[in-house]
Amino acid sequence: MTATAPTAEAAVVDLLPSYIQDSWWTPEDPQKVAEVHDASTGEPVCRISTDGLDTRAAVEHARSVGQAGLGEMTIHQRALRLKHIAGYLDEHKEELYALSDRTGATRRDHLIDVDGGIGTLRVFSSKGRKELPNTNVIIDGDVEQLSRDGSFLGEHIYTRLTGAAVQINAFNFPVWGMLEKLGPSFIAGVPTIVKPASQTAYVTQACVRLMLESGLVPDGAIQLISGSARDLLDHLDHRDHVAFTGSAATAQMLRSHRNVQEGGVRFTAETDSLNAAILGPDAGPGTPEFDAFIKSVTLEMTAKAGQKCTAVRRTIVPSEHVDAVVEALRSRLESRVVLGDPRDEATTVGALASKDQQAEVGRAVQTLLSAGGTLCLGGPEGDVGTADAQAGAFFPPTVLSFDDARTPEVHAVEAFGPVTSVLGYADVDDAVELAALGGGSLVATVCTHDPQTAAAFARGIGSHHGRVLFLDRDDAKTSTGHGSPLPHLVHGGPGRAGGGEELGGVRAVKHYMQRTAVQGSPDLLTGVTGVWHRGARANTATPETVASGEAVHPFRKSLAELRIGDQFASGLRTVSLEDILAFAESTGDTFYAHTDEEAATANPFFPRRVAHGYLLVSWAAGLFVEPAPGPVLANTGLENLSFQTPVTYDDSIRVTLTAKQIIPRETDDYGEVRWDTVLHNQHDEIVATYDVLTRVAKEKDPDWA
Amino acid sequence: MTATAPTAEAAVVDLLPSYIQDSWWTPEDPQKVAEVHDASTGEPVCRISTDGLDTRAAVEHARSVGQAGLGEMTIHQRALRLKHIAGYLDEHKEELYALSDRTGATRRDHLIDVDGGIGTLRVFSSKGRKELPNTNVIIDGDVEQLSRDGSFLGEHIYTRLTGAAVQINAFNFPVWGMLEKLGPSFIAGVPTIVKPASQTAYVTQACVRLMLESGLVPDGAIQLISGSARDLLDHLDHRDHVAFTGSAATAQMLRSHRNVQEGGVRFTAETDSLNAAILGPDAGPGTPEFDAFIKSVTLEMTAKAGQKCTAVRRTIVPSEHVDAVVEALRSRLESRVVLGDPRDEATTVGALASKDQQAEVGRAVQTLLSAGGTLCLGGPEGDVGTADAQAGAFFPPTVLSFDDARTPEVHAVEAFGPVTSVLGYADVDDAVELAALGGGSLVATVCTHDPQTAAAFARGIGSHHGRVLFLDRDDAKTSTGHGSPLPHLVHGGPGRAGGGEELGGVRAVKHYMQRTAVQGSPDLLTGVTGVWHRGARANTATPETVASGEAVHPFRKSLAELRIGDQFASGLRTVSLEDILAFAESTGDTFYAHTDEEAATANPFFPRRVAHGYLLVSWAAGLFVEPAPGPVLANTGLENLSFQTPVTYDDSIRVTLTAKQIIPRETDDYGEVRWDTVLHNQHDEIVATYDVLTRVAKEKDPDWA
Repeated sequence: MTATAPTAEAAVVDLLPSYIQDSWWTPEDPQKVAEVHDASTGEPVCRISTDGLDTRAAVEHARSVGQAGLGEMTIHQRALRLKHIAGYLDEHKEELYALSDRTGATRRDHLIDVDGGIGTLRVFSSKGRKELPNTNVIIDGDVEQLSRDGSFLGEHIYTRLTGAAVQINAFNFPVWGMLEKLGPSFIAGVPTIVKPASQTAYVTQACVRLMLESGLVPDGAIQLISGSARDLLDHLDHRDHVAFTGSAATAQMLRSHRNVQEGGVRFTAETDSLNAAILGPDAGPGTPEFDAFIKSVTLEMTAKAGQKCTAVRRTIVPSEHVDAVVEALRSRLESRVVLGDPRDEATTVGALASKDQQAEVGRAVQTLLSAGGTLCLGGPEGDVGTADAQAGAFFPPTVLSFDDARTPEVHAVEAFGPVTSVLGYADVDDAVELAALGGGSLVATVCTHDPQTAAAFARGIGSHHGRVLFLDRDDAKTSTGHGSPLPHLVHGGPGRAGGGEELGGVRAVKHYMQRTAVQGSPDLLTGVTGVWHRGARANTATPETVASGEAVHPFRKSLAELRIGDQFASGLRTVSLEDILAFAESTGDTFYAHTDEEAATANPFFPRRVAHGYLLVSWAAGLFVEPAPGPVLANTGLENLSFQTPVTYDDSIRVTLTAKQIIPRETDDYGEVRWDTVLHNQHDEIVATYDVLTRVAKEKDPDWA
Repeated sequence: MTATAPTAEAAVVDLLPSYIQDSWWTPEDPQKVAEVHDASTGEPVCRISTDGLDTRAAVEHARSVGQAGLGEMTIHQRALRLKHIAGYLDEHKEELYALSDRTGATRRDHLIDVDGGIGTLRVFSSKGRKELPNTNVIIDGDVEQLSRDGSFLGEHIYTRLTGAAVQINAFNFPVWGMLEKLGPSFIAGVPTIVKPASQTAYVTQACVRLMLESGLVPDGAIQLISGSARDLLDHLDHRDHVAFTGSAATAQMLRSHRNVQEGGVRFTAETDSLNAAILGPDAGPGTPEFDAFIKSVTLEMTAKAGQKCTAVRRTIVPSEHVDAVVEALRSRLESRVVLGDPRDEATTVGALASKDQQAEVGRAVQTLLSAGGTLCLGGPEGDVGTADAQAGAFFPPTVLSFDDARTPEVHAVEAFGPVTSVLGYADVDDAVELAALGGGSLVATVCTHDPQTAAAFARGIGSHHGRVLFLDRDDAKTSTGHGSPLPHLVHGGPGRAGGGEELGGVRAVKHYMQRTAVQGSPDLLTGVTGVWHRGARANTATPETVASGEAVHPFRKSLAELRIGDQFASGLRTVSLEDILAFAESTGDTFYAHTDEEAATANPFFPRRVAHGYLLVSWAAGLFVEPAPGPVLANTGLENLSFQTPVTYDDSIRVTLTAKQIIPRETDDYGEVRWDTVLHNQHDEIVATYDVLTRVAKEKDPDWA
């Protein structure tokens, strides 16, 4: 973290440095060097080489120094750190914009990449602290009672991987592509090795440099390989995780590596796919859905000049509307698209990332035309307006149509630019089949205003897709769009889309952890998880021991004093018929089970008139409460309340309340405490179980008694 | 289902039939035939061949007929079907025992395989109906509000895969191995193609025949390949799922298939691994943990003659206790093991599955000895007692020890028989490192009575293991054992253990489904999921419209009449200070925030004295209840109660209650209804949100008003 960082100037005029073992590094006498050019002007930007880079040392550094540094923090501490890193990047994002201009991306594109990346860190920071415990062990799901007497339990926990999180990214999102993977792996506590695509690695390098400059990145937590990953995979094993984003061909190459095949490297891929936008049968011309559909398809064709793995490659519409859709797309694209240098204010669509990309998109379009496609707009020879098609990698928005919607090429050949093909369908089943011919996709849009049509498409195409956007008049304005993976929702898809899964809120953190079933006694599982399990040792206070001063009521303990297992066990209180009737009267809850002896007795679940469940939990609060001001600040909620045995008049109840989980907040002077709560009757049968959620002060206030 | 099934007699004396496209099938003129022998006597049992079997037709049949038949049922209906299938198998299990005797397994081993398999179906049946909705779409996690105005939401759903669930199983558990995979795929609605290991395929075939005889299996839901799978994988794609159990070498062979590498076939492997049992530093000789440890290791060495992928291969103990552990193992094994034909009552440990296996285990032990192991008991030339080691595949319990605990072979070479190696460790970190040298395992036992030691091991070895059993005096008697995968808990492990995951309760059902993010308006997501989303259209009744007869209170609708979106919206009720004080008095909940104006005002979250949360939910019940007997039979619980805005005296509250999810029970005349419940104050601010859980009758009772 203390190494001398090269300046932005140096970073883009000569060899782009890597950051390995907490130092910036460039090869001394590189043999294999690639040159990177400005996408619009063709001017050289930087040179790239990793000749001689010691990838084994990088992996070992991550596993030792990186693991140690991140491991000193809890999940919440790391999540909070991310928020501050995001803040630092936000303050310095103009620097990233300036570099990103050279990739051919427009300012609007930068919002996706730079601001989108920063926003993703913020969402992970917030979700990590709201939805995960402030420890390093995450419990997954419910406890399973594996023996009748409660002495043997099972459950699932997540603990972090003990290796490195390697990310191998695509050229189209040099900032977002790194940060969307870094966010969850950082929270999990797994150090990252970033390998950006060479074409735009200078933007990623600048972003890494900024993060390091912030002073917020623990030693070993981030390393950067600016160029070929060389023999990196040779040094990975089952402790390590590789997340790849890019082409299907590269994914297959990586997946076939011996260490992935045999060595247990955890590999996930997100590859561009032939995503569809489907116009519903109800969404013909003249409907608000039709207009929303045309806007969406043109946007998804042209954002990032179509270089998004989520871009709409197949526009699937009712056969009778093919012409109308083609016409509407042409009209909107012709009137709105200005190709050009992103630094020119009039530009709405920038260049492809390189001349190589330009040539490749041209070849793909040619293949589609040869397979039977009709060129409706654009194409390799199409009009690029005032843009310099010789120096820059410009490609005009291109619309094709196919008479035969089952032409294999249109479902297999991807033109990674502003290109879509319009296909007609006969009915919903036919549209589902066409969508499925893509062999698995990242995302589809289904444009319909009919919930039953939406349901039919969900059933039909759901299992072929990682994400489905339902677009209609109600969400057209507020939708975040077909092409935008959100940190809250999973990104990735089956088959052609790579078969992986990223993002999805805290699901993504768990991608960098191992789910393990643990079995044992309540005491041992309490020790393992840091969460109290029913049946484990408890430190019990009673009304008597509290009154005598022998014990302290757990509600009188601040977070600094409270321990899981601290417990309060009340005495019995008898419920009379008068109590039940009075409660019915005062609350208005005169349900017959509480007020009508005959009808209550006829109910299959009640012996006779019974106490309201709400009476029981209210009384329980009366039995466990400590009235005077103290560290318990508020009851914020209640979870998983289950009524198990009815309580009739003349029965008695008692409550046992145990500190189950303590979650101190990093940013407040209080934290959350979850109390396991059990109500028993006079026969020691369980009446009800639930968790009471409270806010408890971290320190004692001297004013409290 | 109506095809003529061969009798048990025919099934085991000649060519073992396959079951393809709903018919029994044997090759007419097979060229490639394998012969299967009784493990103890060497007598021939059956012949195996799939020459000419049309695997493409099997896959197509699963995708068409199998998908259609299973798709006609809901999750609960399929789960209930499993219970009945389990019942049929239970009635006929003696037939499976008799065949299983021929595999070398003892009666105790049959309990694991046959009864364990039947029990697994029952657990899945029960969990499927308790923990999943009674539809075909499963919601995963919470709804994400993606626009401020609530018009655009995101969430995750699971829908079934549209292909086949292929299972390729190991020889050691011919019944359990099939049923533990069939249970979850059947509930998910994905048809199965079973390919058992040839050595014990006759037991699997008998089990499939029984299931078909039961008449409970829909057409196309199960197909059986009795022998080589031939070109089966050539016909699979991203719609299909392959679950493999067996050796690491075979897993690698399957994983490298083009359709797995490039075609998106969903592949999961569970391979045998070098599982460890670790004796904690606190668990020396003389402790109850030591005794439990010795019992566990000997049991896990000898059950199924050590042919379990979970068997203890590495016994890792404090260095100072190596001799004591070796001695205790020897003593217990010598005094308790009687090798022999399982049909002989005295036998406690049966034969290995075949002479080939016997030879292979011998070679593995020899490798370990050559690498520096010391033979403490047994070995290839060891004493097999009265067992016929020439005719039968017997192998004596074998204990090795190693002076160098880091000998690579002991962490890599698996002797798939009753063989363990004892290794000494210096401290907990050293033990963690030794365990990790296995490169990822299915399971480890950690024997300790100290919760902090348990926690240290969980942190250290958790991410290398699919399951960790913590054994101590408290659970030694009730533990289900190191070697037993339970349907409730995940089975599988990273690295050497295959990197897959099976079982784990309803998690396993989701393995046969795709998780998809869906985005849309509340109305469309309500349509897609069948669960009402806040903001979607509602059919609202009010006190006024109910009184006038214009509307029906949703509590007066049976399940036959009730629809999601049926809603009741109450009027406002004002809370007075007297109400709050009276509630405090009657319940005993005199917490200062309700009773002490000055202290309440000083609290950071309250404006002045506020109403109890319990008062609010009690009053809400009073506002929405329909008192007379009707279809709502009971309030069984309440979930996710979150208090959002405090209510002080002179504020008013109203409640909106909406039918959110309806889950009719297959086996009762009622079902569960989940009601979305929102409390607002007089300013239309949200006061609290929660779900009320009720039981509602399916049909109206004529006695009700």
